[in-house]
Amino acid sequence: MMKKVLVTGGAGFIGRAAALALRARGFHVHAAGRRAVADLPADIRWHQVDLLEEGALAGLLGHIGPSHVVHVAWEVTPGKYRASPANLDWLRVSLGLIDYARMRPETRLVGIGTCFEYDLAGGTLSETATPCRPQTVYGRCKLALALAFETAAALGLSTAWGRVFYPYGPGEADGRLLPAVARACLSGQLLDCTVATQRRDFVYIEDLGEQIARLADGAVTGNVNLCSGAPITLHTLIDGLARRLGGAGLMRYGVRPAAGEDSLPLIAGDTARLRDEVGWAPSLTLDETLDRTAAWWRARG
Amino acid sequence: MMKKVLVTGGAGFIGRAAALALRARGFHVHAAGRRAVADLPADIRWHQVDLLEEGALAGLLGHIGPSHVVHVAWEVTPGKYRASPANLDWLRVSLGLIDYARMRPETRLVGIGTCFEYDLAGGTLSETATPCRPQTVYGRCKLALALAFETAAALGLSTAWGRVFYPYGPGEADGRLLPAVARACLSGQLLDCTVATQRRDFVYIEDLGEQIARLADGAVTGNVNLCSGAPITLHTLIDGLARRLGGAGLMRYGVRPAAGEDSLPLIAGDTARLRDEVGWAPSLTLDETLDRTAAWWRARG
Repeated sequence: MMKKVLVTGGAGFIGRAAALALRARGFHVHAAGRRAVADLPADIRWHQVDLLEEGALAGLLGHIGPSHVVHVAWEVTPGKYRASPANLDWLRVSLGLIDYARMRPETRLVGIGTCFEYDLAGGTLSETATPCRPQTVYGRCKLALALAFETAAALGLSTAWGRVFYPYGPGEADGRLLPAVARACLSGQLLDCTVATQRRDFVYIEDLGEQIARLADGAVTGNVNLCSGAPITLHTLIDGLARRLGGAGLMRYGVRPAAGEDSLPLIAGDTARLRDEVGWAPSLTLDETLDRTAAWWRARG
Repeated sequence: MMKKVLVTGGAGFIGRAAALALRARGFHVHAAGRRAVADLPADIRWHQVDLLEEGALAGLLGHIGPSHVVHVAWEVTPGKYRASPANLDWLRVSLGLIDYARMRPETRLVGIGTCFEYDLAGGTLSETATPCRPQTVYGRCKLALALAFETAAALGLSTAWGRVFYPYGPGEADGRLLPAVARACLSGQLLDCTVATQRRDFVYIEDLGEQIARLADGAVTGNVNLCSGAPITLHTLIDGLARRLGGAGLMRYGVRPAAGEDSLPLIAGDTARLRDEVGWAPSLTLDETLDRTAAWWRARG
């Protein structure tokens, strides 16, 4: 039988990458989001829908009848999503996915979580060993849904929960780190940075899409870190992109204080499950991913 | 203004104790549950309703308009509740309480959680220091709702989450430890027990009701252990009741193996928040609570 996947939030940075990777694996892909039109290949069926509206998710699921659901949609407005009450709305609406799977127990459900569910003091964060201790509204509501997904798995359903670390690459939204770097370089403006010696687990967006597609196309249950497992300093990433865009001298390191979780020396993911159980391995070098990211920004102007 | 509280699950072991304690504090008490009639004083208004039915909770809240809600209702069938899919239904329905509080931000919400949200290997479990690591469907769904309550508090609402340890006393349902002891004693039958040297944090049901009432009548937010802080061995509790009911010799200690969490040497709660912030202190000795429990069983026959 044809594998039919619904990707919610399918026009966003992560959802689009997941939809493309699932398409490349041979899935029949449906994608949904609030936008009227999404920049997606014609054979990906687009559904314009606000999933927070009463009954919208159940209606969409009933209409499509997917064998797989990759649930990316959530409150993601940069600068706002961490403290938004909409996180509670997304939690409640998302539980409807489990209701669908309870009625159709052959369904495979993959939810998208975050490294911010963990106690970040852990450094290298492990799905099994690191305690969860979210500090934000966003992290708490994501963890609450992760627990519901775990519950569904304990009840015999096929669910997995991917915890995304620091994605970057073409298509990243303004308000985040690399877009700020790119815009400064392209406009010749100075950019105030932190000391940038903190190490983070950055994951290239196409790699992340592939990880999600493999997770969806398999049978692993429970929590899985979605990351590179190769943390680098912020400086390495910022300087790598800025050099390619001719703006390395515009970065003012150490000018902006690193507050809160930004000040932690290391946030990285343990990749044992991702590698051994999901079967993912990197195919691109850091230089290649930065080349592609820089090319995308150059083409955009 | 009159404080008007809705106690969900108000006819159950914990809900009834909470309703009586809230009444004693001067609240106007509404209680709800699936039973046609509840054994409650006449000035407690009873609402027969299945809260898992679509729209039932919103309807009840709209009808009563409570200033306070104590949410005890949940899947609690002895022997079944830990693995029941109904835990997911209760999670979703319970999120509706937060929606109500978002529309009426002066509302005080108290939810009832469980020590089984914690990593039980911790021994003496602390709201702030002990990681959460639930191992059952029940524990996971309770923790998911706890996170939603924490989220609501972070958004400025007045919510608290009481984590109940091991309640006992008059009215306890069959299928649990002390009712089995009492029934064996009253019928002269042997009872197979574990070695019973494990220590647990037992809390007398009237004390628990008082703790919940104080928590509801205050402004403490976040997670609060509801327990005695004075763990005793299972043997102490079993023997204490059995002696009072003339059946101490019927208890066959060490005959039944202690499996899973039953084999942990200690499960107790840190009472710092309960004592210092909620302002609760015990008023009865263990002997007094066992006297009352034994008297209730004797009267029941």
